[in-house]
Amino acid sequence: MSSLGAEIREQFPILHQEVNGHPLVYLDNGASSQRPRSVIEAIKRYYELDHSNVHRGVHTLGSRATDAYEGARDKVAAFLNAKFREEIIFTRGTTTALNLVAFSYARSVCREGDEIVLTPMEHHSNLIPWQQVAKATGATLKYIPLQPDGSITLEDAEKTITERTKIVSVVYVSNVLGVTNPVKELAAIAHRNGAVMVVDGAQSTPHLKVDVQDLDCDFYAFSGHKMCGPTGIGALYGKKTLLDNMEPIEFGGEMIDRVDLYESTFKELPYKFEGGTPIIAGAVGLGAAIDFLTEVGMDRIHAHDTHLAKIAYEQLSQIEGLTIYGPRDNRTGLVTFNLKEIHAHDVATVIDQEGIAIRAGHHCCQPLMRWLNVNATARASFYLYNTEQEVELLVRALRNTEQFFESIG
Amino acid sequence: MSSLGAEIREQFPILHQEVNGHPLVYLDNGASSQRPRSVIEAIKRYYELDHSNVHRGVHTLGSRATDAYEGARDKVAAFLNAKFREEIIFTRGTTTALNLVAFSYARSVCREGDEIVLTPMEHHSNLIPWQQVAKATGATLKYIPLQPDGSITLEDAEKTITERTKIVSVVYVSNVLGVTNPVKELAAIAHRNGAVMVVDGAQSTPHLKVDVQDLDCDFYAFSGHKMCGPTGIGALYGKKTLLDNMEPIEFGGEMIDRVDLYESTFKELPYKFEGGTPIIAGAVGLGAAIDFLTEVGMDRIHAHDTHLAKIAYEQLSQIEGLTIYGPRDNRTGLVTFNLKEIHAHDVATVIDQEGIAIRAGHHCCQPLMRWLNVNATARASFYLYNTEQEVELLVRALRNTEQFFESIG
Repeated sequence: MSSLGAEIREQFPILHQEVNGHPLVYLDNGASSQRPRSVIEAIKRYYELDHSNVHRGVHTLGSRATDAYEGARDKVAAFLNAKFREEIIFTRGTTTALNLVAFSYARSVCREGDEIVLTPMEHHSNLIPWQQVAKATGATLKYIPLQPDGSITLEDAEKTITERTKIVSVVYVSNVLGVTNPVKELAAIAHRNGAVMVVDGAQSTPHLKVDVQDLDCDFYAFSGHKMCGPTGIGALYGKKTLLDNMEPIEFGGEMIDRVDLYESTFKELPYKFEGGTPIIAGAVGLGAAIDFLTEVGMDRIHAHDTHLAKIAYEQLSQIEGLTIYGPRDNRTGLVTFNLKEIHAHDVATVIDQEGIAIRAGHHCCQPLMRWLNVNATARASFYLYNTEQEVELLVRALRNTEQFFESIG
Repeated sequence: MSSLGAEIREQFPILHQEVNGHPLVYLDNGASSQRPRSVIEAIKRYYELDHSNVHRGVHTLGSRATDAYEGARDKVAAFLNAKFREEIIFTRGTTTALNLVAFSYARSVCREGDEIVLTPMEHHSNLIPWQQVAKATGATLKYIPLQPDGSITLEDAEKTITERTKIVSVVYVSNVLGVTNPVKELAAIAHRNGAVMVVDGAQSTPHLKVDVQDLDCDFYAFSGHKMCGPTGIGALYGKKTLLDNMEPIEFGGEMIDRVDLYESTFKELPYKFEGGTPIIAGAVGLGAAIDFLTEVGMDRIHAHDTHLAKIAYEQLSQIEGLTIYGPRDNRTGLVTFNLKEIHAHDVATVIDQEGIAIRAGHHCCQPLMRWLNVNATARASFYLYNTEQEVELLVRALRNTEQFFESIG
């Protein structure tokens, strides 16, 4: 029994509406979360009071905007427990952050014969950049195999990660299987083999306490919009010693030291990776989201989301002909399933008529879909404002859906 | 006499505050503009009513968010008079848009011996990406020389652009000199020589009616935040025939067709260039900004901004020892200057005490600063909410500054 959802949902304006004549039940948080009033107000207040371009202005608004933007960097650094604030690079989101690691770090260190280790459960954003690096450098992609329940074992990781491995890049929490991967242990194995550890934190950062120093990962990427923040902002954490030696991959104002007509030199961290006018209001909104989540407490959020996923798993397991993917335990905030032979899109469309929003499709994980031997799945993903009652509404709607398709044969 | 500023400024919440005990006079629009209530409300409303991830959702909020995002693309396409909506690629801003042209288009077409033609007045974002392309491909950078007043001539352009030229990339309106460059004529010269024409529209799009079909440019880049839109959103326009043949440079979800463990194929336009969760609320805000500007009328805005720059030029010219940079005529919305030997930062700091916000520095144009033989300049840049009275306040403050520094010797 977790009371968090009922307590907190008043703060989320979007949740208080009817969709198709029913109260909205938003269970698509793995794709994108909603925002509390405090985040929306922080963005509004920034635009109404403080906005200007940053770093370059000597006037008052310029200083206020710079303080707001750099203050957000401090909040991200504290939230991830980074050692230095300049280890936080603001990006458009997880995808841009992982591409930065691939195209700056990996492309410069990988050679023919080197190996990049992934898992088959990676999101496309943690897969296609590495395919491109492999194509450009002659490095090879290797995959830690999945167990029948979709998890990975450290024994397999030990076998897959070798002295040839330059990079291990693994998702912390799978957006399909819900499984939490042992990234701390993987980082240790990577380091013993002289490789760096990259963590795709898109689904973990919203749901559990992240400590990059404890994980000892070398890079960590996440998005704001999945954790109550704005769209179009995220960050890359990277160890200072690595970032210091990396070349920028996007070039413009703000990130330069000296520019001549034919040559340029670049600023120190973090600015060399933030060319152009930054995503200022986005960073401010992300900072407000971090304040909000911290005040609620990441441990409490984790317990709540895990609890909802657990009861959803249990109750959905009771529905005959419903297949759940991924391990029963160690599951963070989501349940992915198919209902008999009914296409996941049809399931999602039918329950949308009852105001319930779930996702259907390949979830940007086509290789995992093929491993699961399905074209698509449905996914219900929970966050701090969801309630046990909403899980029950989902279960009831799925039962009705099953009966409906049964009746039309 | 233009009444636009007095009429419209009520709609901009940020303008109605005191800074250092004086009403704010915001003259730093070249760096970033402010937002009307309608834009701030559009972002708020989106988050309070419609937000979800886009394209992938079969539920109601997913459809609404997708309509909002793709509707914003239609607005941008209409605003620039693009022929096809898929010619509009949403980016983080001008910098990201120009980098996309440089690293996707230019890096694949340029070879040793090819030439890329720029001007010495380019912003760093339209300079450093080309230096990187030159370094990677062996192409050479060439510059159309500046006249003594900072303008360029078509005669010089004809001499600089040759059969070896693959790319001509020029700023439409200079952020330092205020000059409007003849990009339509440059595009014709580029095309006669088999080159493509890239336009940096960061400073033009906010101030004048842009018609990419009339200009016949091949690429056009701009940012939302300089034209009443949010930070962290902008767009690249590109001719469909060119974009169709270009490879993506950022990889993730949303932009793929089929993904296997070792190979992937990509979607059609515009999605192949928009990997990851898009900047949804940013696009919605940009769409609202376009609605706002269109309702006011770009011709009226252009007349107003040009008028303010003209009277500022005239009145500042009266101050003894004040040097204005750039041509007297053909000036869009800004005046750049130095006051005797007083450092531009000191000028800006002193008048900030009177609530007046101007910019001081190299304006991301270091090569142009060296051409002007200065380290820095001050810049007052105007937008639709500024008034003639604010120009007078600026002039009076600069006179006081001059006397103050005179008195302290």
